Amino acid sequence: MIRVAILGSTGSIGRSALEVIARHADRFEIVALAANRSAEELTAQVRRFQPARAVLCHDGLDLPNGGGRTVWASGRSALLDVAEDPEVDVVLNALVGAVGLEPTLAALRAGHRLALANKESLVAGGELVMEAAAEGGGEVVPIDSEHSAILQCREGYPASSIQRVVLTASGGPFRGMTRDELWRVGPDEALRHPTWDMGAKITIDSATLANKALEVIEAHYLYGLDYDAIDAVIHPQSVIHSFVEFVDGSVLAQLGFPTMELPILYALSYPERVDDPVLRTYDPVRASPLTFEEIDHASFPLFGLGAEAGRRGGCAPVVYNAANEIAVQAFLEGRIRFPEMADVVSEALGRVGDGQIGDVEDVSSADREGREAAVEAARKLTGRVGASS
Amino acid sequence: MIRVAILGSTGSIGRSALEVIARHADRFEIVALAANRSAEELTAQVRRFQPARAVLCHDGLDLPNGGGRTVWASGRSALLDVAEDPEVDVVLNALVGAVGLEPTLAALRAGHRLALANKESLVAGGELVMEAAAEGGGEVVPIDSEHSAILQCREGYPASSIQRVVLTASGGPFRGMTRDELWRVGPDEALRHPTWDMGAKITIDSATLANKALEVIEAHYLYGLDYDAIDAVIHPQSVIHSFVEFVDGSVLAQLGFPTMELPILYALSYPERVDDPVLRTYDPVRASPLTFEEIDHASFPLFGLGAEAGRRGGCAPVVYNAANEIAVQAFLEGRIRFPEMADVVSEALGRVGDGQIGDVEDVSSADREGREAAVEAARKLTGRVGASS
Repeated sequence: MIRVAILGSTGSIGRSALEVIARHADRFEIVALAANRSAEELTAQVRRFQPARAVLCHDGLDLPNGGGRTVWASGRSALLDVAEDPEVDVVLNALVGAVGLEPTLAALRAGHRLALANKESLVAGGELVMEAAAEGGGEVVPIDSEHSAILQCREGYPASSIQRVVLTASGGPFRGMTRDELWRVGPDEALRHPTWDMGAKITIDSATLANKALEVIEAHYLYGLDYDAIDAVIHPQSVIHSFVEFVDGSVLAQLGFPTMELPILYALSYPERVDDPVLRTYDPVRASPLTFEEIDHASFPLFGLGAEAGRRGGCAPVVYNAANEIAVQAFLEGRIRFPEMADVVSEALGRVGDGQIGDVEDVSSADREGREAAVEAARKLTGRVGASS
Repeated sequence: MIRVAILGSTGSIGRSALEVIARHADRFEIVALAANRSAEELTAQVRRFQPARAVLCHDGLDLPNGGGRTVWASGRSALLDVAEDPEVDVVLNALVGAVGLEPTLAALRAGHRLALANKESLVAGGELVMEAAAEGGGEVVPIDSEHSAILQCREGYPASSIQRVVLTASGGPFRGMTRDELWRVGPDEALRHPTWDMGAKITIDSATLANKALEVIEAHYLYGLDYDAIDAVIHPQSVIHSFVEFVDGSVLAQLGFPTMELPILYALSYPERVDDPVLRTYDPVRASPLTFEEIDHASFPLFGLGAEAGRRGGCAPVVYNAANEIAVQAFLEGRIRFPEMADVVSEALGRVGDGQIGDVEDVSSADREGREAAVEAARKLTGRVGASS
């Protein structure tokens, strides 16, 4: 039995993970569940899966009456206890936001496998994460479709045989639009994602391609690839999840219908593949044609800005990510226009993007500075919009 | 240094292999070259690569004046000597036709790696070949694009994790035509292949999809897959060379521009990948779109007949292959129509497709019987055409 702790069990990835694990109860056992503050849903999950431990990450919430064998706890230290618990084999980190970094580091230092869905861990703390893995002997197995695709394609080949990876991006709902046209789109249109059903933040990131920039940064750390060796291409059908190009010119691709359950199952069972007839497979004829386009950098500058932040390293990726969150928020609230999200992020990067990262504290302060700079940048733009309207 | 013997060095695959090896002279060394009867070209190759041995397979030809250190020989036994030579690491068998089977068996019994381009080895002698590999400890690494793609996708995964493979077929020049329309096409039109530049026989096989049926049979033996787990799909762009579907529903594909040099290099260096900047890689945007269609069994019945022959096993695949050669010949000479090639093969399979295969002699007699039955079937049809014209 592989003993699994799920951090962020009430989010979209957490729930999918529970469904996958419920189908493979002969192979996986839930030993801990943690949620940020959704006490009610977590209680229902605890009743169903009977883990040894349950954690509400947010301090000061009333803990539900346990019932059964589950021990309840709350707060940051309880979360870290779960992450480094020797009774755990795989820590699935599906927490949202910066709160995910510390449990990531704890799990890797404890030598666990980390099934990683928390983007901030690698984007904000990439070097710290890879150091923690090297120190503790833990390993990171990614859960998102693109990086799982790369892992699947490179399996069996040494890192030295890889020449390049190409991430695919659906292109979002505004693929093909000019910057001028994008000036007129509102949050409602941006939230209609053509192929994936996701939360609001990630849907906007998909529409701006910021999401793909974050994945480029993640790929850099996960696979030790130079930024020159990481590319992205628009693939509206979202059927090919990524390409790996080898030194002999050969290319492997991983394909599948858009579901998070496959990368979750693969991350849990890696390097084994588990038989799962529920997971719908790819049918070439039904999914024909597959098309590919270059990224339109003029319309979607957040992609290039993110890749550039990755190249700068240090605190730049943290600032990029933090400023982008503020920009998305401002766009969703109607305070700035779609193309202005890139302006906000660019200004924040220009002002506070140059620090170094030595520890988690540095990540926190870069994150805070990035947010502050972005808030200010957005406020100036909002003022402008107000003035001109 | 990997010491390579090339059997069939003056054919298309043999020449490509020499180009690949010339580019990687630091890694591969030609120790033997063999050709069927092209003495002049073989002499030129011997002068360039200075192998220890050179063989003209055809008995009774005048041997060129050696010159240099190369020892010349001729005939079947000289060919087998090369195949089992302990001074050889990889035997690349690019011979055309049934003559390729015995050197295949000899190389595998001697424990060599066999880089296999000779289709007849597996189609006609599949069981014998896999037995020889098990006996002698040799291994078969395929050289054609489709099986190389499967090998590349399955690398790193156990056989038990594979659920299905899907071979791709360009569909040839007559894709989309009805049986009635095919009745009117002549050899000249059939010889215009849309994506690959190949010899006449294989080009016709590509137009009828007989080629893909032979590959299904090869995949069955190479990868130990049931026929139910082997499928084929039309993919006119010939960019994806095959798919491997795993038990978890995930699919890997191998992609590349149509060149035989990549599978040749991979077969020689396997499981390593060798850096080769000359090999042009796949560009998703330039190669967009990729499309896929079901095989039209009514128009291209030779595919289904071949897969069925594979399922029957025993001498049926030998008869299929032999009868198909006769049918292609008859079509190229204008004696039968395009759709009648399937009729010829079908009739031969019905008459002599039931024997068992225990040794090479059985293969030879099934081959001979298949040809005789096909010649007779073609003659009857030719008579009919003559009578009605």
